[in-house]
Amino acid sequence: MNAMTQDNLRSAFGGESMAHMRYRIWGEKAEKEGFPTVARLFKCTADAEEVHATLHFEALRDINGDFPVTSMAGFGLTNTSENLQGAIDGETFEFTQMYPAYIAVAEMQGEKSAVRAMKYAIEAEKVHAELFTKAKEAVDGGKDLEVKTMLLCPICGYISLTGEEDNCPLCNAKKELFISY
Amino acid sequence: MNAMTQDNLRSAFGGESMAHMRYRIWGEKAEKEGFPTVARLFKCTADAEEVHATLHFEALRDINGDFPVTSMAGFGLTNTSENLQGAIDGETFEFTQMYPAYIAVAEMQGEKSAVRAMKYAIEAEKVHAELFTKAKEAVDGGKDLEVKTMLLCPICGYISLTGEEDNCPLCNAKKELFISY
Ligand SMILES: [Fe+2]
Ligand SMILES: [Fe+2]
Ligand SMILES: [Fe+2]
Ligand SMILES: [Fe+2]
Ligand SMILES: [Fe+2]
Ligand SMILES: [Fe+2]
Repeated sequence: MNAMTQDNLRSAFGGESMAHMRYRIWGEKAEKEGFPTVARLFKCTADAEEVHATLHFEALRDINGDFPVTSMAGFGLTNTSENLQGAIDGETFEFTQMYPAYIAVAEMQGEKSAVRAMKYAIEAEKVHAELFTKAKEAVDGGKDLEVKTMLLCPICGYISLTGEEDNCPLCNAKKELFISY
Repeated sequence: MNAMTQDNLRSAFGGESMAHMRYRIWGEKAEKEGFPTVARLFKCTADAEEVHATLHFEALRDINGDFPVTSMAGFGLTNTSENLQGAIDGETFEFTQMYPAYIAVAEMQGEKSAVRAMKYAIEAEKVHAELFTKAKEAVDGGKDLEVKTMLLCPICGYISLTGEEDNCPLCNAKKELFISY
């Protein structure tokens, strides 16, 4: 694999790994503040980021060794409204800046497995940003998010809050594979 | 918090988050290769790294925003023997190089919460390296790791394969808190 795409995939792996961890921590905080469904959304999205991190790690499977990895990451642990804003900002950075740049390089270099892993991720991040925006509107209105269904596609990281899809709208995986939160 | 200690804690958070993710992936691989107890050790240690990542994130709780984070991280997904060598190398880097350097800076800067978080981590990493070394000896002899007990201290990330301790030897947490794998 070309060096620039390798570097970008490692950076994306670092960003996804830190997002996974941050959402688990922010989920605990939402639980403590009395927003159990927002907590559930954070934990479901944490697992979606694990799907992305794993896709990137697998695309890099043949390149062994230790590397310095630089990634953007959000920090801070104040309250759930601010944590949701941090999540929206992080997802938006990923789908408007990071992944478009990395995908352009991977396409230019003809790195098909990298393109595939990152195209799954970019589409899922758009959905994550929408769902966190809904969650923030609820929390800023003093309420928990009001949804019953919460389903994760374990192939691409898509999240459904309706369950109305037949197959995954992003990767076409069968709905029977979806994991309920 | 002083800027250098902030940076070092963010770097340690990145390293722990990527180690958590890598060990989960390497655990799946060990499972597939017929080493269920090595898989269990990878998953238990993944959760120990989540303890460390969370300690560092909480020490940084008042510093909000997005930052570029640079951390060393291991890559590659060939076979369990090589993955265990990667784990030993990563843990050894952390307890011989990364944490000693970061702790020296935090002590010099009088950053008590950072020193505390990183001292828990460095002592646990020594134990992780020992256990991965045992696991590699077993796998290289064609066998799975032979242990029944596997306990994680959720306060500091210490792992016990005997259960003979009264309290956690690293952080003194009560043994009743230990999580069994
Ligand atoms: Fe992601
Ligand atoms: Fe996301
Ligand atoms: Fe999908
Ligand atoms: Fe650690
Ligand atoms: Fe460790
Ligand atoms: Fe402990």
